[in-house]
Amino acid sequence: MSYRIAVIGGTGPQGKGLGYRFARHGHTVVLGSRSAEKATPVAEEVTARLADVEGAGEVLGASNTEALVGADAVLIAIPWDGHDEMIASLAADGGLDGKVVISCVNPLGFDKGGPFGRAVEGGESSAAESAQRLAPGATVVGAFHHVSAVTLWGEEEYLDHEDILVCGDDAEAKQVAIELARSVVGRDGVDAGKLRLARQLEPWTAVLISINKRYKIHSGTRISGL
Amino acid sequence: MSYRIAVIGGTGPQGKGLGYRFARHGHTVVLGSRSAEKATPVAEEVTARLADVEGAGEVLGASNTEALVGADAVLIAIPWDGHDEMIASLAADGGLDGKVVISCVNPLGFDKGGPFGRAVEGGESSAAESAQRLAPGATVVGAFHHVSAVTLWGEEEYLDHEDILVCGDDAEAKQVAIELARSVVGRDGVDAGKLRLARQLEPWTAVLISINKRYKIHSGTRISGL
Repeated sequence: MSYRIAVIGGTGPQGKGLGYRFARHGHTVVLGSRSAEKATPVAEEVTARLADVEGAGEVLGASNTEALVGADAVLIAIPWDGHDEMIASLAADGGLDGKVVISCVNPLGFDKGGPFGRAVEGGESSAAESAQRLAPGATVVGAFHHVSAVTLWGEEEYLDHEDILVCGDDAEAKQVAIELARSVVGRDGVDAGKLRLARQLEPWTAVLISINKRYKIHSGTRISGL
Repeated sequence: MSYRIAVIGGTGPQGKGLGYRFARHGHTVVLGSRSAEKATPVAEEVTARLADVEGAGEVLGASNTEALVGADAVLIAIPWDGHDEMIASLAADGGLDGKVVISCVNPLGFDKGGPFGRAVEGGESSAAESAQRLAPGATVVGAFHHVSAVTLWGEEEYLDHEDILVCGDDAEAKQVAIELARSVVGRDGVDAGKLRLARQLEPWTAVLISINKRYKIHSGTRISGL
């Protein structure tokens, strides 16, 4: 099935990289940013990259609010700083109501000791759960936290050495992310369980970045035994 | 190099399974429990299992306190409930001073929604960091959180589809766990970074257990790109 996907924060490396992957596999992608003026050149860059890809979907640029119009799914790919304000503002006029919202937001910090996970509400919440609380009319799932922006924008057809882990409390919404994972890794995402497991999926990225720094690689996570 | 390893909680499935793997590859293992009487039959069971394994190390049973005597490394394999009391009691008479302490403790909870990570000190600590605080004379690392007890006790020579992630603030102590990983997965453990990343490594096990329940497997974690 082909979706129309709004990417909030679509000009950032993660949003642009995932948008590129979704469009490469036939989905229509609207990259959202603070303003359409900022989003349009990035959409053109991704479109140019897809020029020779048969069956690629259209890539458009829009303001974040405009990007939501008509979207089947919304990917939240914004930094954790300012996350709650952004979600509240998108939700304020009902723009997220009835939509499947996929959060790949990672609340991370960095200091001289390296990357670390930031505890959300004393460790009892996560970016995805915050989004669900602030946009009660949406159905939020967590996914795509661990794929590296560099790898997403790279040449490999599929990042098939990694798994996309999906968490959420609604099976149908989870299924959308599980399907979209095919565009990235060439196979279904892995159903990791309840939305609250976003508390583990999100800051796991700190472990991967730490490994990247030590071993000079772009690491990913694979679940063995599947 | 061959170590003498005390396993605190050595009669539990994780401690017994890891002790079995270490002994199978030539290390001397002292399985500790509340009492020597409880530990001895388990040590005999592991010894019997190793009867045909050339070069296997000795497996002994002892009380947790006795197990520490002469140990090069101490594996903490106890439940999170009661963890701090146990560590404080082992540390009280200096029993952990100067030792490399490897914690595989996972603070997890379970309810009708499945497994979940328990936030330690508002998400700003972990079992491994608690152990370090309670045993300041020891050098604590985190490792072996994700291997399934069933797989450890199984027939495979190596669990080579998984990675052992090691975190800690002391390079030498980390190296001990990195080496011991060879007994389990057939290759070095992965240096994941600072001890505080135990906040991510420990509750990640909730994600694996959740996946196990959904897919009826014994999952593990592999880092891609290494």
